[in-house]
Amino acid sequence: MVSPLPPDRSPEPSPVSPAGAVGAPLELLWPENPVLVRATRGHAVESVHRGAWCVVDADGALIDGRGAFRDAVFVRSAVKCAQALPLIETGAAERFGFDDADLALAVSSHDAEPEHVARAAGILARLGLDEGALQCGPQAPGSSDARFALRLEGRRGTRLHNNCSGKHAGFLALALHLGDDPARYLAEDSAAQRHVRAAVRDVSLVEDFELRTAIDGCSAPTFHIPLSGLAALFARVANPRELGAVRRAAAERIVAAVRANPTLLAGSKQRLCTDLVRVTGGRVFPKVGAEAVYAIGVPAGPGRAGLGIAVKMDDGAPRGLSAVVVALLERLGLLTPDEVRALAAWRSPVLRNWAGLEVGRLEVEL
Amino acid sequence: MVSPLPPDRSPEPSPVSPAGAVGAPLELLWPENPVLVRATRGHAVESVHRGAWCVVDADGALIDGRGAFRDAVFVRSAVKCAQALPLIETGAAERFGFDDADLALAVSSHDAEPEHVARAAGILARLGLDEGALQCGPQAPGSSDARFALRLEGRRGTRLHNNCSGKHAGFLALALHLGDDPARYLAEDSAAQRHVRAAVRDVSLVEDFELRTAIDGCSAPTFHIPLSGLAALFARVANPRELGAVRRAAAERIVAAVRANPTLLAGSKQRLCTDLVRVTGGRVFPKVGAEAVYAIGVPAGPGRAGLGIAVKMDDGAPRGLSAVVVALLERLGLLTPDEVRALAAWRSPVLRNWAGLEVGRLEVEL
Repeated sequence: MVSPLPPDRSPEPSPVSPAGAVGAPLELLWPENPVLVRATRGHAVESVHRGAWCVVDADGALIDGRGAFRDAVFVRSAVKCAQALPLIETGAAERFGFDDADLALAVSSHDAEPEHVARAAGILARLGLDEGALQCGPQAPGSSDARFALRLEGRRGTRLHNNCSGKHAGFLALALHLGDDPARYLAEDSAAQRHVRAAVRDVSLVEDFELRTAIDGCSAPTFHIPLSGLAALFARVANPRELGAVRRAAAERIVAAVRANPTLLAGSKQRLCTDLVRVTGGRVFPKVGAEAVYAIGVPAGPGRAGLGIAVKMDDGAPRGLSAVVVALLERLGLLTPDEVRALAAWRSPVLRNWAGLEVGRLEVEL
Repeated sequence: MVSPLPPDRSPEPSPVSPAGAVGAPLELLWPENPVLVRATRGHAVESVHRGAWCVVDADGALIDGRGAFRDAVFVRSAVKCAQALPLIETGAAERFGFDDADLALAVSSHDAEPEHVARAAGILARLGLDEGALQCGPQAPGSSDARFALRLEGRRGTRLHNNCSGKHAGFLALALHLGDDPARYLAEDSAAQRHVRAAVRDVSLVEDFELRTAIDGCSAPTFHIPLSGLAALFARVANPRELGAVRRAAAERIVAAVRANPTLLAGSKQRLCTDLVRVTGGRVFPKVGAEAVYAIGVPAGPGRAGLGIAVKMDDGAPRGLSAVVVALLERLGLLTPDEVRALAAWRSPVLRNWAGLEVGRLEVEL
C-alpha cells in the first residue's frame, strides 16, 4: 500500500539547527568538518577540500562517519530516486507507459545528450503535453557535444535540456494521474508534491517537522535533512525490506532501472554516476546532487551487507567530491582491485598541466 | 639599473613551513582560515568558502589580515606583472617593438579572444618565431565564442590559445635578448628565468632561500611565497618608489599598460580583472591566479594611500574568491557607491535557478 499522506498543510515552523541557519555565527559553519582532500603541487599542498561523510547499515543505523553528518544539508538532485517513488506507487508510471529507461531518466541528472532529450520529449508526448509544461527552466546541455550541436542550429538550451527534465516529466505524469492542475505540479500543496514529500520523509526516516524545504535549481521543492538521513534514504531504497510492499516494489524497480540504464542516469562522458554503475555492474546505486552532495545505496548481496553512504563537501564543488566518493567505496571493500583501477581517474587523479606534465596529485584522507 | 642577478645555482633546500608541505598532518592545513563566504538557499547555508587575506601598505608592511596569510601559497598567474619586469628592464621589449597592448598581454591570463590570439602571434612573428616555440601547452579558449569558432573550423585550442601565451611570448623575447637557447626559455637556470626569479624576489621582499618553485599550469616555474609577500609584490609594483630607477620605470609602464588595455588583461566577458580595471578607471591594478589566488596593487593617489592586497581561497575555486576581492575593495574604501553597484554581480550575487527564481545569495563576511 502507498504510505498515507500527511495532512494538507504548510510545514510548521521547526527548530532550526543553530549551525547552518542563515544569520547564524560563521564559527558554527562546520569547523568539525575535516580536510578530506588535498591538491598538491610539487613539494606543497595548494588547495584543500573539507567535508563530512557517513555510512549507515541497511536499516539506516549509523556505522561510521566524520564531520557534521548530523547537520542538515540540501539534498538537491541526490534524492530523485525517492521523489520518483510515487510515480510508480500510484500507478501513474504504468498508466503512461513508463519503461525502465523512462524511469532511469526520471531519477537522472542528465547531460542533455540526444537520447536524454528525446526520451523526455517522448514521455511528455504520451502525457499529451510538450516542453511548455515543464517548469524546470531552460539550461544549456551538460554535454559539450550537445551544446555545440545546438549552437550550430542557432538554438539555445531549452527546458528539455535541463538536467532535471526527466524528473519533471515524471512529476507531470504523477500530477495528471492524481488530478492536479498540471500548471501547479511543483506547488508544495499539490497532491503530487505531497506524495513526494511523504516518500522522502518515509525512506529517510526524518520526522515531518524536521523536513524543511527550499527551492531547487529546477524550481521543485528541495529537502533539507541531516546527511545521515540521506544515507538512510539510500540504504532503504537499495534494501527496501522494511518498506511497505508497494513502496518496496517501486524501490526495487528504480534500482533495477538504473542498473540497466547507466548512461541515462547521467551521461556517456566523464560522469561519475554512470561510471560507478557501469564499472560495478550495478552493485552500487549512486546519485550526485548539486553543491557537492552524493549518496550511494549498496544492496545486500552474497557476502555483502546492505549500506547507505552520503557525502557533502563544504565548498559545493565537484573536484573533491568525486575523489571522496570512490575512496569511501574502496575503504568499505565494495570495489575489486580491477574496479579501483578503472575508477582511478576519479579516486586519485594525477594533476597534469596543459603540456601534459605531472604537476601534482589529488589525495584523499578519509 | 637592473637588480643584480643571484649566482647561477639551483635553489638551496630550504626550511619548509610545516603547514602545507606534502605529507604534513592535515590538521595543519589552515584551520585558522575563516569562513569568508556562505552560499545560502532559502533558510539555510548550503556551502561555504574558507580563505585568507591580507592588506599591506605601499612599502609592504602588514596593515590587516585574517587567516594563515603568513603561510606560503603558489602565486601562479597572479605575479605575471613581476615576471614581465625583466622584459622591459633589459631592453628586450624595446628591441622587439612591444607596445603597451603587447605588455598588457604579457601580464594577462586571457580568454583567447581573437584579439588576444592575434597579438600573441604578432609578437612571435617579430621574434622570428611561431607557435611551435611556445612551451605552454595547448588549451581550449576560455571564451565560449572562441571555442565555438574553433570547433566550427574543426580545430582545437593551440598553444596560442593558452591563457598564458602572452607571458610566454614575453619570456621568449627576454630569452632571445639575453642570448638564451629559446628551446630552454623555461629552464630555471636560463638567463631569462634567473632574471624573472630575481625580479619576483625583489618586489615581493621574500628572501631568495624562501623562494621555492614548482611547475605552473603553463610549465613555467611558479613561486611559493607567503600570501603577505604577494601583497607586498603588488603594493611595490603599484607604488615603485623604493625600487631601483630601471625597475621603477618598468613597473610604472606595466601598470599604465594594463590601465589602458583592460580587455587584454583577461577578456571582454565576465572577467573580474577586466571589470575591476574598467569600473575603477584603472585606480586598482588587479590580477587573478589559478586555484583562487588574487592580488591587487593600489597606486597612491589624491587622498588615497598606496596598498597591496592578496587573497587565497582554500578550495581553489573562483566563486568565493571574486566576492571576497570586491568586498575587500569596498571595505577599504576604494570603491565609490556607483562602482560598488557596478560590481554587485561579483560582490553579492543573487543565486537564481534555471527558471530565474531567486533561490539564495552569496554573502561575504571578512
